[in-house]
This record gives sequence, structure tokens and C-alpha cells, in this order.
Amino acid sequence: MHCVVTGGLGFIGSALVRRAVAGGATVTIVDNLLGGCGGRREHAPADTAGVDVVIGDARDRTVMGPAVEGADVVFSLAGKVSHIESMTDPLADLEHNVRAPLVTLEAVRSACPNATVVFASTRQVYGTPEFLPVTEAHPLRPVDVNGVHKVAAEHLHGVYAKAYGLRTVNVRLTNIYGPRQVIAHDRHGFIGWFVRLVLEDRPITVFGDGAQRRDFCFVNDAAEGLWRIGQAPFAAGEAYNLAGPAVASLAELAGRMCAVAGRGRVQMVPFPPEKQAIAVGDCVTAGDRLAALLGWRPTVGLDEGLAATLAYFQEHFHQYTTTGDDSPVR
Amino acid sequence: MHCVVTGGLGFIGSALVRRAVAGGATVTIVDNLLGGCGGRREHAPADTAGVDVVIGDARDRTVMGPAVEGADVVFSLAGKVSHIESMTDPLADLEHNVRAPLVTLEAVRSACPNATVVFASTRQVYGTPEFLPVTEAHPLRPVDVNGVHKVAAEHLHGVYAKAYGLRTVNVRLTNIYGPRQVIAHDRHGFIGWFVRLVLEDRPITVFGDGAQRRDFCFVNDAAEGLWRIGQAPFAAGEAYNLAGPAVASLAELAGRMCAVAGRGRVQMVPFPPEKQAIAVGDCVTAGDRLAALLGWRPTVGLDEGLAATLAYFQEHFHQYTTTGDDSPVR
Repeated sequence: MHCVVTGGLGFIGSALVRRAVAGGATVTIVDNLLGGCGGRREHAPADTAGVDVVIGDARDRTVMGPAVEGADVVFSLAGKVSHIESMTDPLADLEHNVRAPLVTLEAVRSACPNATVVFASTRQVYGTPEFLPVTEAHPLRPVDVNGVHKVAAEHLHGVYAKAYGLRTVNVRLTNIYGPRQVIAHDRHGFIGWFVRLVLEDRPITVFGDGAQRRDFCFVNDAAEGLWRIGQAPFAAGEAYNLAGPAVASLAELAGRMCAVAGRGRVQMVPFPPEKQAIAVGDCVTAGDRLAALLGWRPTVGLDEGLAATLAYFQEHFHQYTTTGDDSPVR
Repeated sequence: MHCVVTGGLGFIGSALVRRAVAGGATVTIVDNLLGGCGGRREHAPADTAGVDVVIGDARDRTVMGPAVEGADVVFSLAGKVSHIESMTDPLADLEHNVRAPLVTLEAVRSACPNATVVFASTRQVYGTPEFLPVTEAHPLRPVDVNGVHKVAAEHLHGVYAKAYGLRTVNVRLTNIYGPRQVIAHDRHGFIGWFVRLVLEDRPITVFGDGAQRRDFCFVNDAAEGLWRIGQAPFAAGEAYNLAGPAVASLAELAGRMCAVAGRGRVQMVPFPPEKQAIAVGDCVTAGDRLAALLGWRPTVGLDEGLAATLAYFQEHFHQYTTTGDDSPVR
């Protein structure tokens, strides 16, 4: 089995590469290492047997064409994950979140049309939930530019499945946390930022009343799910939620993090207006359709996952707070 | 009233510019005149008083920033309309159909945030209809790349309305026909191509059994609708069908065209595979929501509209078949 992972030096990508290697696959990583996307050269596995690292951009046809040659599964993870940056620089988000997966699809169509393409989408495609938990049948009403572009990329995977018979699948990820995530700033989501605040003994600042509920998924579970989907008999062109096993409010998550860390405190602060404008309230996703497909569900609980995350960043704190990832990508 | 019309030298844009001038507005046209988009310098109104023509690209921030200064209404029409070209060159379609309206939105947000933005979308956002006639509540399941990108642009207009309070509206156009449309090839839809075939005394070739039903709208009606929407109290960020007053199958349309022209014949031919892959069968849209908003509906019947179209192209035939518009846009 040969896999390609775009964004394979990033947070989720690097966990997926490790899972693929453990599963006996050879892997080609494509990563642009652009500041702000979360990719780091040192995220490559220590044992590089069977792992080829291409430092290149998934938006570039001349990179992706050769990179996908011979692939059995292409995991399309390269992109920008910041909702707030998608509002301040929507054109960069368009480039990274629509052009990159589109170039990847075109490369697969030319070079390896029998490969499976697993696209990393997001729960943010739903926008403000109309019902909870959110199933895949929920309408797609994105409330920020990042969500709009993820919907577009999902639809492109649907078109390529229907019009060309490509074996594509969209996986809607929820709030993922774990080692190697971005903790330098709060623009990649609140969990990494909370980790940094705790480890610096600064109060965790939660917006609003902190009652917004989310489902949380440890990164190794997310990687396991993506890996399994790559080999599953999914309905081509369709979407599946990869829901987290733990549901908590943001205030509860912050409190749990302090308890696991044995330090820290939580402080409620008003929503900044630019974040309020794209806030969706409660959002908990239902993973039953994927569980039925795979015969498997994410299992890592919040205490266990947070302990592993905090331990990793205690060891590598300065690496993640003093270099890279501090400026938005263009 | 000052209007900006991107794509204002194109087919629908040039009709809209005439309607705006007749309504007493001053107009800034922005058009890139790229071959294949349908824009022609001679589509500018003969009387240029109050009309400013900017030859520039709506994808370019340095063009759009100054162009929208002082606008009351921005009609965002620039784009590529070919479904088949969107499949053969999806990256060009992305640039023209997502980047261009996004740059336009950003320009409005900076320069004239109180302006109304009217975005020209398409019935193709629905994909294969699940029920007829298709209302705005129908799910968006585009079946080709052009449809995907139009959905994305609609969603961006929704986000800019909700997050920034911009006054945006998406207008889903149906099959529009009339003077100044592209007749050089069949990649901008079948009606212009049928016109050319009739006027060259070649048989009109209809794909499949020709039973696919559509609603047809004469371009002056479409322009009237867009103009009125620009001044109406629509729900910001939402979408309205601009349906045609005439419903017919493709075979019936072809027969009607021959009858009005007093010449020609119709021939059924098998679907080419690349068109079959993105065919949607019957698609008739419901315009009741827009009619309720405007207190007005398109009224030009098929015989009247086809007669005006054929008369225009009989007079200007060589201009539209011997220059420009023969090569896909990059």
C-alpha cells in the first residue's frame, strides 16, 4: 500500500503518517512548510524508511502530478485551518482550501485514477446547527469563509466521483487536539491556545459564558479514522462525520485541562466582535454513520488525551512557542 | 444612482447596462474582454454619456478597489459561464467564478459597504432536480465544477451579509437567450448554438431524445429583474430564482426556433459522453418568491424573444462567428 499525505508535516497529517507507517504503508508526504499552516520539518517520523518527504505546495500542478504517481490512497489534508484568518485574508484561504484540493484531484485523475482520495473537511461546513447532534443530512450553511471553501472542496470531490468515477470521500473532522498542534496563537482553534495558557500559568480565557458544547477528538483517533476510511467501502463522493467521543462545554474543557495539568485557572471574557460574528453556538456532531461503516469509533477520552497533549507540550514547549506559526499565511 | 456592472460588456451585462442607463443611473462597466467570456468592446451602449468603461479584471484587487468607489449597486456578473469548460479547465473556472466575486466583495467591504451587491448565480447550483419546479429550498448538489464554484460564491455573499452586514443577494438565473449572446460555439449553452445552426441552414442537433424541459428567459427580462432586485427590500445574503416565463423541452425549443425563423430542421443525436456526465435532465425553476418580492415577473414569450434574437444575429452574424470567443479562457 502506497499513500500520499498532503499536509503530512502538519498536526493531523503527521499523526496520520505515523499510523500509515505502522500499518505497513509506504508514504509520500507533500508539505509546503509555509509559516502558519502548522507544518514543521521535525514532524516527519524519526524512522524515515519508506517515507519520502516532498517540500512543495499542493496548489502547484508540477508538484502534485509526480507526487501522486503510484498512490493507492491520497489523503488530502493540506490547507489552512484558521476561521478567523479566512475572514481577514479570504483570498489566501481560497488558494489553500479550494485550489490545493482541486489540483490534487486533477493530479489523481491524470496519474492514478483508481486511487482513493480522502479529503479532510470540517464540521464548520454546517454553520450554526439547526439540530443536535449534527448528522450528515444537516444543510450546509457555512458562516465563515473557511467553511465556504471547505464546502466547495467537498462538492468538487463529489463531482469528480460522479462525473469521472473517482473514489473520493469527504471526512468532516470535529475539534481535534493532541501533540504537534499549533499552540503559538489562538487562530487555529481554542484548544492549542488553552494548552499554552495553562503551561505558562496564565488564565485560560473562555469567550462568552463558556457554555458552547463541542465534541472533542484526540488526534490519534482522528488519524485512525482517516486511515480506516482510506480502506473502507464508503459511498464515493459522499461525506462522513468523524465525531469525537467526548462532549463538553468550552468552560468544562478548560476546567478539565486545569485538573489534568494540576495547575491553571479559567476566566470568562466577552466575545471579541470578530469572533462573535462567526460563532455558531453549540455544535456536536454525530458519528454513527461512520461507526456503521467502519465497525469502529474513536475511543480516547478527554482526560487521557489531554494528559498526552500536555505531556508532549511540556517537553517541547519552546519549540512551539518561539519559532514559526506566528504570522498568517499569504 | 450609480451602478457598477462587472462583465458589463458581456451578454447579460450589456443588457443590464442599457436598462440601468434607461433608468437614469450612471454606470461603471468593468470587463476584461478575455476571449471566451462573451465580452466585446462594441457591446458598450452607443450613447456613452454617464457610462464609464474600465477594461480590467474583476479578479484584480487594484482594478476593483477604485472601480466600486461611490457605487450604490454593484452587479457582480463577471465570470465564465461554460459548464463543459469548467470540467476541462477547473482552475480557470475557480479563478473567474470564485476569486472574481470574492475580490468584488472585498472591494465593496472596503470602499462602499452600504452598496447593494447583486450576484449572478445559476440554476446549475441545484444539480439534478429532486422535485419540479425547483424552488430556492431545493438542496444545492451541483454536478459540475461551474456549479460548485457558483455555490461557493453564493455562500460567500451569504457570509459577507451575516458577518459584515453587507447588503448582498444571489440571483439564480435560468436559461437566458437574446441579442449579444455567444453563438460561435456550443460551450456557452445550447440556445446560442441553435441560433447559429439555424442561420447557417445546418440541422439543429439536440442531444438524447430532446425531452429535457427548461424554463427560458429573454435577456431583457433578466436585465429588468436584476435591475429591480438592486432596489428591492430583499432578504440580505439569500437567493432568489429568476425563472423564465416560457417552459419547453429542448426539442420543442428547437422546433419553435425553426418556425420563427421560417427555416431549419431538428435532428436528435446521442449525448457526447462528456456532456452526459454532467447532464441534469429536466430542470424548471419556480420564480414565485422573486415575483412576490418585486410585484413583477418576466413576460417576454418565446416567439417574441426568439424573433428578436434571430433578427439581431441575422444583422450581425459575421461579427459573432468570425471573431473572438472561439478559444477557452485561461
